[in-house]
This record gives sequence, C-alpha cells and structure tokens, in this order.
Amino acid sequence: MTRELRWTELADVKDELAARDWFPGTSGNLSIKITDEPVTFLVSASGKDKRKRTDEDFLLVDRHGIPAEETHLKPSAETGIHAQVYKLTDAGCCLHVHTIDNNIISEMYASEGSITFRGQELIKAFGIWEEDGEITVPIVENYADLEQLAKATASAINPDTRAVLIRNHGITVWGRDAFEAKKHLEAFEFLFTYHIKLKSLNLFHGVKRYTAKKIINF
Amino acid sequence: MTRELRWTELADVKDELAARDWFPGTSGNLSIKITDEPVTFLVSASGKDKRKRTDEDFLLVDRHGIPAEETHLKPSAETGIHAQVYKLTDAGCCLHVHTIDNNIISEMYASEGSITFRGQELIKAFGIWEEDGEITVPIVENYADLEQLAKATASAINPDTRAVLIRNHGITVWGRDAFEAKKHLEAFEFLFTYHIKLKSLNLFHGVKRYTAKKIINF
Amino acid sequence: MTRELRWTELADVKDELAARDWFPGTSGNLSIKITDEPVTFLVSASGKDKRKRTDEDFLLVDRHGIPAEETHLKPSAETGIHAQVYKLTDAGCCLHVHTIDNNIISEMYASEGSITFRGQELIKAFGIWEEDGEITVPIVENYADLEQLAKATASAINPDTRAVLIRNHGITVWGRDAFEAKKHLEAFEFLFTYHIKLKSLNLFHGVKRYTAKKIINF
Amino acid sequence: MTRELRWTELADVKDELAARDWFPGTSGNLSIKITDEPVTFLVSASGKDKRKRTDEDFLLVDRHGIPAEETHLKPSAETGIHAQVYKLTDAGCCLHVHTIDNNIISEMYASEGSITFRGQELIKAFGIWEEDGEITVPIVENYADLEQLAKATASAINPDTRAVLIRNHGITVWGRDAFEAKKHLEAFEFLFTYHIKLKSLNLFHGVKRYTAKKIINF
Repeated sequence: MTRELRWTELADVKDELAARDWFPGTSGNLSIKITDEPVTFLVSASGKDKRKRTDEDFLLVDRHGIPAEETHLKPSAETGIHAQVYKLTDAGCCLHVHTIDNNIISEMYASEGSITFRGQELIKAFGIWEEDGEITVPIVENYADLEQLAKATASAINPDTRAVLIRNHGITVWGRDAFEAKKHLEAFEFLFTYHIKLKSLNLFHGVKRYTAKKIINF
Repeated sequence: MTRELRWTELADVKDELAARDWFPGTSGNLSIKITDEPVTFLVSASGKDKRKRTDEDFLLVDRHGIPAEETHLKPSAETGIHAQVYKLTDAGCCLHVHTIDNNIISEMYASEGSITFRGQELIKAFGIWEEDGEITVPIVENYADLEQLAKATASAINPDTRAVLIRNHGITVWGRDAFEAKKHLEAFEFLFTYHIKLKSLNLFHGVKRYTAKKIINF
Repeated sequence: MTRELRWTELADVKDELAARDWFPGTSGNLSIKITDEPVTFLVSASGKDKRKRTDEDFLLVDRHGIPAEETHLKPSAETGIHAQVYKLTDAGCCLHVHTIDNNIISEMYASEGSITFRGQELIKAFGIWEEDGEITVPIVENYADLEQLAKATASAINPDTRAVLIRNHGITVWGRDAFEAKKHLEAFEFLFTYHIKLKSLNLFHGVKRYTAKKIINF
Repeated sequence: MTRELRWTELADVKDELAARDWFPGTSGNLSIKITDEPVTFLVSASGKDKRKRTDEDFLLVDRHGIPAEETHLKPSAETGIHAQVYKLTDAGCCLHVHTIDNNIISEMYASEGSITFRGQELIKAFGIWEEDGEITVPIVENYADLEQLAKATASAINPDTRAVLIRNHGITVWGRDAFEAKKHLEAFEFLFTYHIKLKSLNLFHGVKRYTAKKIINF
C-alpha cells in the first residue's frame, strides 16, 4: 500500500474517532507505519483540531520519532510512545485517545497496575476465542517527563499486550493495521464502559468474572 | 421485492445501527430473508467494519447457513443463530447487536433466565396493546461452541418471543421485515436502558411493575 | 405561511428529533396547526419510521383529529391528544416524544401528580424571567383507552401549562410555533436529565430548590 | 484576519457545539473580537435556534455590548458578560454554553465558590505542563439582574482564569482565538464529566487529587 493510501486510512480513522469526541481539547494522536526497515511512520502533528481534515495533520518521522523529512510541522509530544510501540510489537497502526471511561478505569485500577477482563464476548475482537479467554491492560503512572512516560509504557508491553492505559491520560492501543487498531480500541472502550456501569449498579465485585461454564468469583 | 431491494434495506439498517455504534469492534451481524421455500437469506460477511458500506457486506446462504452461491466471502460465525430464527419464527429480518445496556441486562438477569417488562408504553412496539401487556426476553448462557449456542438460542424461542439475549453477548432480535426488526430492537434497547436507569436510582425493585389501573408490586 | 411551508417546518423538527433517537420504535408523533377557525392541523401518520422523510409522514385532520381530506393514511392513534392541546391552548405546534429521562421523571413523580422546577437558568426558555420563577409539569396516568388518555391530558392543562407527562409514555409539549415547541421540549429534557443526575449524586432532596438570593429547601 | 473570516470561524464553532446539543432551548451565546482599540466584537443575536446557520446569527457590538452598527437584531441578553471578558483578559473569542455536567458541577461546588482540578492530563489543554499543575474555575451565583451577573462574573476573573461557572447557568470560557476557546471548553467539559462520574462511583472524595509522584489526599 502506498503512503498516500495509508495517509487516507489514518485520516479516515481520525475523522471517525473525532466524530465521537474522542480527541477532547486537541488531545490524542495517531500513527501508521510506512516502512519496516528502517521503521518510519506518519504521526499526528502537534496541537491540531482533530475535527478538521487538512494536509498538515500528519508528518513522517523515523523510528526515534524525529521528522524524517524537512517540515515546519512538529510531531506530537507523545510520538516517543508510538516509536516504542513500533519497536516492541508488530503494530502497523497506533491510536491514543482520551475518553471519560478509559480515564476512569485507569484511575480505578491504577494501584493494581492493570485490569483483566473475562467472560465477555467482545474479547473475541482481540482474536481470543477460548471459552475462558481473558485480556489484560497494564496501567502506568502519568509521568510529566515524556521520555520517562515512553519508557514506562514500553516496560509494560509484553507479547500479549494490545494496549496500555496511562493514569488519567487515556489509552494507547494498536493493531497490525488501521482496521485492527480501531477494532481493538472499540472493543476496549466497550469493556471499560460496561465494567463501570455494572460496577455502578453494584453488580460487579473485583475484576474476576464467570465463564459460561462456571462462576469463578462473583 | 427483489434481492437487490432487500440488500439495500439491510444495508440501510446496518448504516443506521453502525452510526449509533451498535457494532463495536466489528461485532454484530444482520440478515434478511430472500426466499421462503427453501429458505435463503443474506447475512453479514465475517469480520467487516460495519461503518463502511461495500458490495461485500453480505452473502447469500441457505437454511443451514451455508453459502448458497460461489463466493470468497465467509458468513458470520453466528449465522447458525440466524438460521434457527428463520426456521422457528416468521421472521423476515434478524439483527444481532451489542450495546452496553443489553449486555448489562443479560448479566443482571442471567440467573433468572429471562426478563419481563410491563407497564411501559413502548411495549406497543411489539403489537401488544393490552393495558396489562407484557413482553419477556429469554436470556441464555454464552456458549463458546457456536453450534451449542445456536441450539440454546433455538430452545429459548416460543411463539411469543421477539428476541433472545445471550449473556454478555448482545441481543438477537427479529421482525417480519427490516422495518419491524429495527422497531423491535429500538423498543428493547429503550426498555433496557430505562430499566437500568430506574434501578440505579433505586426506584425499581424486581421486574414486576404497575399497570395504569393498579400497582402490582412496586 | 402556507401549508407547504408548515409541512417543511414540521418535517425539519421531525428530522432533528429523530437524529437524537427521540422516536424509539416508531413511537412519538408531531403536529402543526394549519388553520384556526375551524382548527385543522397536520399530524403524523401512524406507525412510520421517523428517521425517513417522505410525502406520507403527515396528513391533514380536523379539530376532532379526523382526516380532513381523502387519504389512505391513518392519523397517529394519539391524535386526540393533539386535538385537545389545540382546543385548550394557543399552541401552533405540538410534539410528543419518548426519552429515557422524561419516562424516568414521569415514573419518579407519578404519585405526586406533577414536578416543579425552580432555580435553573433554562426556565427562561419558557419566557419566565423572574428570579424565583418556576415551571410545573403535570403527570397523568397512562390509560390504555386513548380517549380516556386524551381527557386526562386535557384536564391537566391550565393557562400556565406548557407540557404534560404521561406516566412511562413520554412528554407532550407545545409552543406557538415549531420553533417555540422545540425550544420548550429541549428545555424540559435538559431539566429532566439535570434533575435525575443530581438526584443520582444524592445532592437533591425533593423538587424544591434555591433561588439565587436564598436557599429555600435544600 | 477580516471580519468575514472571523464570522465564519465563529459560525463553525457554533455549528459544532450545536451538533453536540450544547445550546438547549436556544440558550448559550458566542462572540469573537473584531478590533482591539476600541474593542468591537461579533456576538450572538438574541433567541436564535443555534442549529440553523443564517446571516443574522451575529451582530457587531462595541465594548459596552451596544450594537456598533444599525441593525434590527438584538444582542444576546448576556452580551455584558462577553464585554467584561474582553475588558479583563486577552480573549479573542468567548463561548457560553449549558451542559448537564457544567450545571451539575456549578451546583455541587457553588457553596465553595470554585472547583480545582489536579492530576489530569487534560489540564495541558490550558497550556499548563507542570507535573503538579492545576486549574481553578470560579463559580458565581446566578443573579437574575444581568448587570449584577456581569459584575459578579468580572469580579471572579484573575490572570489565571480561563472560565467562570454561573450556578445552574452554564460556563463562560474564552481563549485567544476561536480554536483556543473551543479547546478550553472541551477540556473543561471533559474534566467536569470525569469528576462527576468518579464521584458517582464513590472514588473521589474532595477536589484534591494525586500527582504522578505522590498521593496528596485521596
């Protein structure tokens, strides 16, 4: 796929997430890989209104997150996190958005360092089809030093990780391509919102859940 | 009505439900009957982004859910459930969507095996105009084995059933045509959301409700 | 203003409210007055999908709600309520919609027969500018007999009434024209949602509220 | 930038906020500065449906909020508040909207006179990048006398203020231009909604919060 097509793919995802108000106050950023060896990727330019679609929404950066071409644009301050994701995973696209519910989850379970979901059909969106499949999202503290934050995010990634929550700083989620990254994001947001709503109804004690066969801890 | 018109009808319903984010993470699927004897129906191809409208969104399958024509498309893994609905009811269209609230209801009342609504005007959407009319939705466990799940769904259907909830796996709802299936879906989602909100306000103890004439159990 | 312009006005309001999903399951209906003496008005045809805009969405009826012209269309079953509103008030447009929150309010305060709002800026939307201004919405039971329901609604209307809630059956709201009817509807829905949310936060005991000058009962 | 371009900028912001239903019941108003010395600004005409885009949505007023040109339009009754903002700050654009959550926050913390947010990434939207950065929003009573209300709002503004909440009367927020005003508004609304949701989950006692380094009071 050419760079132009990938730009369009990323811009389409941006438009769809912006329409859901998932980039409040110009927060959030997106990237898509262009080349593998060495890694280069398109990433959000800093501080843009994500509701608008322009020729300056993204710029090409190298594997360190440094502009790979002459440009007056500045990459998002959090480009280092995207660079870590491309370094440590097989991601082809990486999305970072703030929603009320991903921030709530990051705060609720910050002291535990992660949250694990079980017994929910949406877990299949991560390619997990086992009856007792589960998905864990690590939660890291929101270091003001962005280099430290990128390292903390990197250290939370293992081969099963599809996303990292930063405390009160949204989710960073990825997939092999834009389609899969968006699929993962939607599934996580569904799980977050569902969990919070059940919790608010006092139906949900702890993150352990039933499987179809037996109740584990409920 | 020709197959092309029915395709358009189904695609229109898909667009409308997708705009409400009722297909999170590529979940959910839809179908519409094309012929009666033998039954054939158009059903969602597996794993598509429901936000996009393409010529490959649906494929024709037979009454067993097997492709009825040569195609490279794979029917949704849950096509067997649609096949059961067409076998057991007079449905002309069948919708399966995940919403936060239909999942919450499925979890809240899973152990009771069903939920019954009374005393709500929206019940008229099911063609029930009696003052003390009621509508019951059975809830089945979410078996990982999809054949077992289709059978469990089938065994929950009786002549008054308009929908089945699968625990933490959304609603399957139908109607004589796409218009009625969507009407039923909207009415159920309204009843689910209303019930949960009243419950969270502690105004609602049990599923029994008043009729306009007398308070039954409130 | 000609009948064609009024049709367009009503269809525009319908489109806007439908986009908010305020006509779930084909519920709800709208009307706009065409002539004064004798009263005739355009009213929703029965059982239409309010998301679609067609030439058959409305039909002309007389002051009793009977079709005023030859037509194959059937007026909404609740046309009698609209007829009462035009008989008893100076309304030029009347809207009936179901929202989760107007149903919740109708259930929460059904036994009191009404709800009164005070101390909220949005009350100015009703043309009430006094510092201690208030607005009361009567709540009537949802009689299955639609003639009885129209009478109950009529008996709840006094010169200060801008809307009536039917228990678990939505709001009927009006204004001198489509613009004012929609303004009133939006303001009521805001007050309902605000009230429920404050209540769920346990901040709001009873419907009495403060004015800017003194706390009355809080 | 010419007046025409600024008109378009303001109309675009209006369209976007109206699509979110942030102007319920024709409430709310917007303005954008046209000249500095003396100050003139475009401000919403009174009582318009903000969902529609017309040539009469705004009119030019002077620094006292009096029409600066011959017009049949009436400036919004709250133009005096905008005039104070332009007098006391470097604002180039000022937005006033009612949302459920800004009204809830204004009521929850009215007796304390303000609310302070800490430890939330979205605070960066205000140009505050310190690890323990915080943002305070003053809350003033909703005086029915609009001149008194403008004075109360003015007296709440200090050099660090980016917005003022009026009790049960929405937020007035500004920025150097339309882009920044909207950014600030979105960030505040996110903080308000997040705070209320955490509070409703009983996770949040008081407005004090942690920083990434240490828990202050939680």
